[in-house]
Amino acid sequence: MRIALDAMGGDLGTVMAVQGALAAVRKNNDLHVILVGPRVHLEQQLVDSSSGSPEVINRITIHHASDVITMDESPVEAIRRKKEATIMVGFELVKNGEADAVVSAGNSGATMAAAIKKLGRLPGISRPGIASFFPTLKQPVMLMDIGANVDCRAQHLYQFAVMASSCSRLLLNCESPRVGLLSIGEESCKGNVLVKETHDLLKKSSLNFIGNVEGRDIYKGNVDVVVCDGFVGNTVLKVSEGLAEAAMHLLKREIMKTWRARIGYLFIREAFAGFKKQVDYAEYGGAPLLGIDGTGIICHGASNALAIANAIEVAASMVRNQVNPAIVRALNTSVV
Amino acid sequence: MRIALDAMGGDLGTVMAVQGALAAVRKNNDLHVILVGPRVHLEQQLVDSSSGSPEVINRITIHHASDVITMDESPVEAIRRKKEATIMVGFELVKNGEADAVVSAGNSGATMAAAIKKLGRLPGISRPGIASFFPTLKQPVMLMDIGANVDCRAQHLYQFAVMASSCSRLLLNCESPRVGLLSIGEESCKGNVLVKETHDLLKKSSLNFIGNVEGRDIYKGNVDVVVCDGFVGNTVLKVSEGLAEAAMHLLKREIMKTWRARIGYLFIREAFAGFKKQVDYAEYGGAPLLGIDGTGIICHGASNALAIANAIEVAASMVRNQVNPAIVRALNTSVV
Repeated sequence: MRIALDAMGGDLGTVMAVQGALAAVRKNNDLHVILVGPRVHLEQQLVDSSSGSPEVINRITIHHASDVITMDESPVEAIRRKKEATIMVGFELVKNGEADAVVSAGNSGATMAAAIKKLGRLPGISRPGIASFFPTLKQPVMLMDIGANVDCRAQHLYQFAVMASSCSRLLLNCESPRVGLLSIGEESCKGNVLVKETHDLLKKSSLNFIGNVEGRDIYKGNVDVVVCDGFVGNTVLKVSEGLAEAAMHLLKREIMKTWRARIGYLFIREAFAGFKKQVDYAEYGGAPLLGIDGTGIICHGASNALAIANAIEVAASMVRNQVNPAIVRALNTSVV
Repeated sequence: MRIALDAMGGDLGTVMAVQGALAAVRKNNDLHVILVGPRVHLEQQLVDSSSGSPEVINRITIHHASDVITMDESPVEAIRRKKEATIMVGFELVKNGEADAVVSAGNSGATMAAAIKKLGRLPGISRPGIASFFPTLKQPVMLMDIGANVDCRAQHLYQFAVMASSCSRLLLNCESPRVGLLSIGEESCKGNVLVKETHDLLKKSSLNFIGNVEGRDIYKGNVDVVVCDGFVGNTVLKVSEGLAEAAMHLLKREIMKTWRARIGYLFIREAFAGFKKQVDYAEYGGAPLLGIDGTGIICHGASNALAIANAIEVAASMVRNQVNPAIVRALNTSVV
């Protein structure tokens, strides 16, 4: 299993990529990581970080690429102009059979555009999208699309449901994922035009469609897959991040107000750490691109080594569990 | 200042309405509350709750109405069928000049429909909507629309911006509210078709438009008014509620795991209470209906007496500060 890692993506630089690759190969004996980035620079960092363990270093190779697509570049323009960018080279390796999947913490629009350009779509898929796991009170919930497609038709949302359902079934080992349609009320009459049309398609499909779910249901974990357009999904993601950050900030501000509370915090901080670990996106291993004819995982720009390592494992798991063939089969058997 | 209170709305029953009315008139000497609901029942509860203080009781009157529109009824159908429902009678009182505003914790769709039917729209407004304050790290932020209009055109979002800006300016005493357009990136090129079209309108307007904001910006408080369609706004509201609930639940689960953390909690619980007070929707006084030719406030279905009392104060403040005339003026001077 060879995973190409875009070593130039991510806000935290190549050192996080190197450490993430090391963590992943240390944990998984069958993994091989190909770092895609500036060779000399990466070789040095690998020597600095690996403490010379040969059985680990032997499973990390470097594929040179020196150009990078930055976070603020227009994806379509960037992939046309920068043919030697790390993310383009990563998907080229998959195309040539030299790697099985790509992981990147870089510009997510460019990653999607590069994937489509190099690998194309799966047969029958009109719009590939990005899925993401959300931590909940129970098992993680997969939300799709979280930002690739901001203007959708019902047929697109239906395909998101098919793709996310197949992916969730194989990755979480969940026999028949419950699929919910994100709306503003549980009744089938609630929602905008797009949601109402999608509701009809999902109801006729062979998916385990449980009807409309609301924003508050995502975190309860009473559903396995939640479907929405990329504008709404991206908003859900960012509102959640913003609220979590603001809440922690506010709570800390309250705790710092009195000595009593500060002392209490010393007793309770392990519980806070346990809480943080449960809601930390880094534990959830990045967001799969679904609908491309290959495997790609997008990580948060601020990914640390743990997040990168988990994303590499998810990429490997997607290839091993043959998520793409399952998507194609599901699309053919669940035609609406 | 006479505020009609729908005493049958709300999941917690008439007792909450009575207690909310009492709290509001106790705190504000110039307030008069008209409880709209079953007379005999309300009279008894008023006697039970008021501890016989005459100067308070004198400022609460009862207007009999016995029918109620429940949470699960279709708004349009319900207001046609139940002409004597509390919420219909409430707006009738405003129409007849017997009350200055209405507060209801009942079916929000029916409240909006009743308001439009009884009072009509403000001149020039095509779609009235619901605005709501969100707690943030700084001042509260007003989001509009939070659910009345699920399929919008750019012109509607532009009018939401004008209405929420006028309301925020007068209620929060903020000279020139910063208006942000909710999107999935700060650059003007980011967003769906609706957002891009709205961006152009807002840019040309005389509002203090600061450009696109993202979901995570809402809770930072670096913006005063955030504009979005009702589907997205309602999703933001419900995702926030769901995440906050789930986070508190998870944190408590972690705390209960060890004795050490349980003891720490005893020291820290005042900080938790302070935090809860800051994020409690009950402190924020309900959601104004904007764009109707009158004043109406919708409260959360689970509103307690504090939430009801605060909503009554917001309603009074909207009338006193002449929010509606300001909206009409702003619409006339900021024509796009």
